[in-house]
Amino acid sequence: MSHTAEILCVGTEILLGEILNTDAQFLCQELSGLGIDVYYQTVVGDNPERLERAVALARSRSDILITTGGLGPTCDDLTKQTLARCFGKKLVLDPESAQRIRDYFARRLPGSEMPESNLQQAMMPEGCLILRNDWGTAPGCILEGEDCRAIMLPGPPSECRPMFQTHVVPYLQALSQAVILSRSLRVFGMGESAVEALFRAEMDAMTNPTLAPYAKTGEVELRITAKAGSEAEARALIDPVEAHVRAVLGDLVYGADVSGLEEVVLAELRAKGLTFSCAESCTGGLIAKRVTDLPGASAVFKGGAVTYCNQAKAALLGVPQELLDQYGAVSREVALAMAEGARRVFDSDLAVSTTGVAGPDPDDRGNPVGRVFIALATPQGNFCRQVDLGGGRERVRVSAAHHAFDLLRRHLSGLPLELTLPG
Amino acid sequence: MSHTAEILCVGTEILLGEILNTDAQFLCQELSGLGIDVYYQTVVGDNPERLERAVALARSRSDILITTGGLGPTCDDLTKQTLARCFGKKLVLDPESAQRIRDYFARRLPGSEMPESNLQQAMMPEGCLILRNDWGTAPGCILEGEDCRAIMLPGPPSECRPMFQTHVVPYLQALSQAVILSRSLRVFGMGESAVEALFRAEMDAMTNPTLAPYAKTGEVELRITAKAGSEAEARALIDPVEAHVRAVLGDLVYGADVSGLEEVVLAELRAKGLTFSCAESCTGGLIAKRVTDLPGASAVFKGGAVTYCNQAKAALLGVPQELLDQYGAVSREVALAMAEGARRVFDSDLAVSTTGVAGPDPDDRGNPVGRVFIALATPQGNFCRQVDLGGGRERVRVSAAHHAFDLLRRHLSGLPLELTLPG
Repeated sequence: MSHTAEILCVGTEILLGEILNTDAQFLCQELSGLGIDVYYQTVVGDNPERLERAVALARSRSDILITTGGLGPTCDDLTKQTLARCFGKKLVLDPESAQRIRDYFARRLPGSEMPESNLQQAMMPEGCLILRNDWGTAPGCILEGEDCRAIMLPGPPSECRPMFQTHVVPYLQALSQAVILSRSLRVFGMGESAVEALFRAEMDAMTNPTLAPYAKTGEVELRITAKAGSEAEARALIDPVEAHVRAVLGDLVYGADVSGLEEVVLAELRAKGLTFSCAESCTGGLIAKRVTDLPGASAVFKGGAVTYCNQAKAALLGVPQELLDQYGAVSREVALAMAEGARRVFDSDLAVSTTGVAGPDPDDRGNPVGRVFIALATPQGNFCRQVDLGGGRERVRVSAAHHAFDLLRRHLSGLPLELTLPG
Repeated sequence: MSHTAEILCVGTEILLGEILNTDAQFLCQELSGLGIDVYYQTVVGDNPERLERAVALARSRSDILITTGGLGPTCDDLTKQTLARCFGKKLVLDPESAQRIRDYFARRLPGSEMPESNLQQAMMPEGCLILRNDWGTAPGCILEGEDCRAIMLPGPPSECRPMFQTHVVPYLQALSQAVILSRSLRVFGMGESAVEALFRAEMDAMTNPTLAPYAKTGEVELRITAKAGSEAEARALIDPVEAHVRAVLGDLVYGADVSGLEEVVLAELRAKGLTFSCAESCTGGLIAKRVTDLPGASAVFKGGAVTYCNQAKAALLGVPQELLDQYGAVSREVALAMAEGARRVFDSDLAVSTTGVAGPDPDDRGNPVGRVFIALATPQGNFCRQVDLGGGRERVRVSAAHHAFDLLRRHLSGLPLELTLPG
């Protein structure tokens, strides 16, 4: 039978915005991998009445409830007490947990006296399954009611994650038979609504697998999700949909299950043993930053020049002053000269450049905000793409960097450098 | 009268764990700064029935409901339709929003046809307040019911955050006749727990104003929040607390209500009519990127060199090969030579450099992951700071960039360049 889970995170610090709730994301990822649907996430503070109401609501609509937080030694930590009350159990001391807490404390602070309050963490709901905590002091537990199973985990990710993977995954696998598999196709060069218009009919018709578009800054993600008895069956459902999407969108699809264009470019460069460099004006270091965010960038990235003023374009990249005077910094001619210059000074196989108007104001030659020239220099010759981007300074910069990576990707894959929309 | 808000994030991608719900943390921080209690956070998928139930529940227990997500152009985007139904309103086309969307599209993809589905984003609940979106296409809105006000914002943080700060903060301030004023003091050079330990006593004792620490990557924010009858009264409550914090932390406090170290540095440079440049190895363009994120950077930022390989350090910055051979790229000597080189080639008044081991692996000279040398070159002489940073590749890079800006700030303000902790 198929299960629906919901996640209930307990902690006033989350509601004050003091911590980012990464447990919820982690648990959702794990549950979807286990083929368990999650319809709700809830956060409540360290307040027994509100927690009790949230638990009652969760039991009324889900058969698996996973809580994080509120298992600690302080008086704010109410999760076990409250859930025990909801499930009509009382708390009893678990001697093994008590001993583990004493040992843990002795290891961490040898010689010093353990506050008795720590033993509150060894008080467990009667008849529960205890989840040993080898990564901290507070044990977790599973309370099995007829209507709903409540799985309680500590809040700190360094305890929540290993405890889930070690104890809860096997427990849930035993409950569930289905697998949910997702594949994310990344699309650059077309807006979310245009992409969706192309697939609206299929998307409405499909139930398993499903196909859904998600907008990312300057690009689109198309996610195919299948539910099946095994990973192999799920893959067999996904593959034809991926093939269809690729047939429709052609080379606008730049990858599957990748983090972004830069990852694809880095992999292609490594595979071909090529290096690149960049010369950035309007992107101001963003291209270099995105490449060097990835471990191993040093194998293919020689470096970058952020030439934010004309003098630097001339001094570092050898852009001829006449070009700057005649065409202005935001021009096809200067973009090409920047890319050539970067390729020469960094002695790289390939180089990309950007020059444009990020805003907030147009430039003195009347180029509007959002106009960007992106150039590529290669041993086979050079190329420049002109675009007019919208969405404010940040979006213009991010999209311009996307275009630079897209030029590299297209060159490395032997694709046409011009963007052409399908149909 | 005092208000309670709750946050409802709409998006199946959150429940699949594919994105981290940073909007919820942002909104909770802002609301707590406004003195508005948040008792619940909920996440539901792109499902009208479950969304409708979540809205009904929220209205039954909170008088302000803030939703994120589901305002886009695709058929998954159901928030406005569903909330309009819950509040008994119908959707009507807002001509101004429609025009803004057409203009936005025309700017982005000149010539090509806009999918009509985009206009779905201009269909607004009858009688709502429209929240203009200058950072994307989907406008937000506020629906005012007698029992509850529903504030709908787009999901992408790059739109949600500025829209909240620009449109929603003033709206919420107007609701409570009391003025809530926050001042955020930014602290660099000391960890959150150490800062908190210094002020623990005060923080527990204070009720109005309140003082709360927030950890940011590599730095700390101390927020003072006062509730009063007027802004002047609120300021009078805040000022002495700020004075006390500054007296305790000294020059570790680098600014009040600023976006980060780079903003302070940019302002100082403009005030003094000075320019700077950077030479980046381990930060890989992050320093240049952060400066050029700020409008007006071009007035003070000459440019940057991302010299990710030794050859580039020599070719672009004139770092002597002997230094690289003798001391290795990650060394005080090379950091100083990089800063000097950047100052020379960019012809800037000041220059900063970074060279270090971002990880995941130590370098071949046995420098551990996290060791970074940050150098500053000035007309009055040069200086190098050595640090050992923790927290993985991204945190090392962000913190190293913080240190570079901190050196610039301290030089520009005539402060000692060495970090010294209080007490």
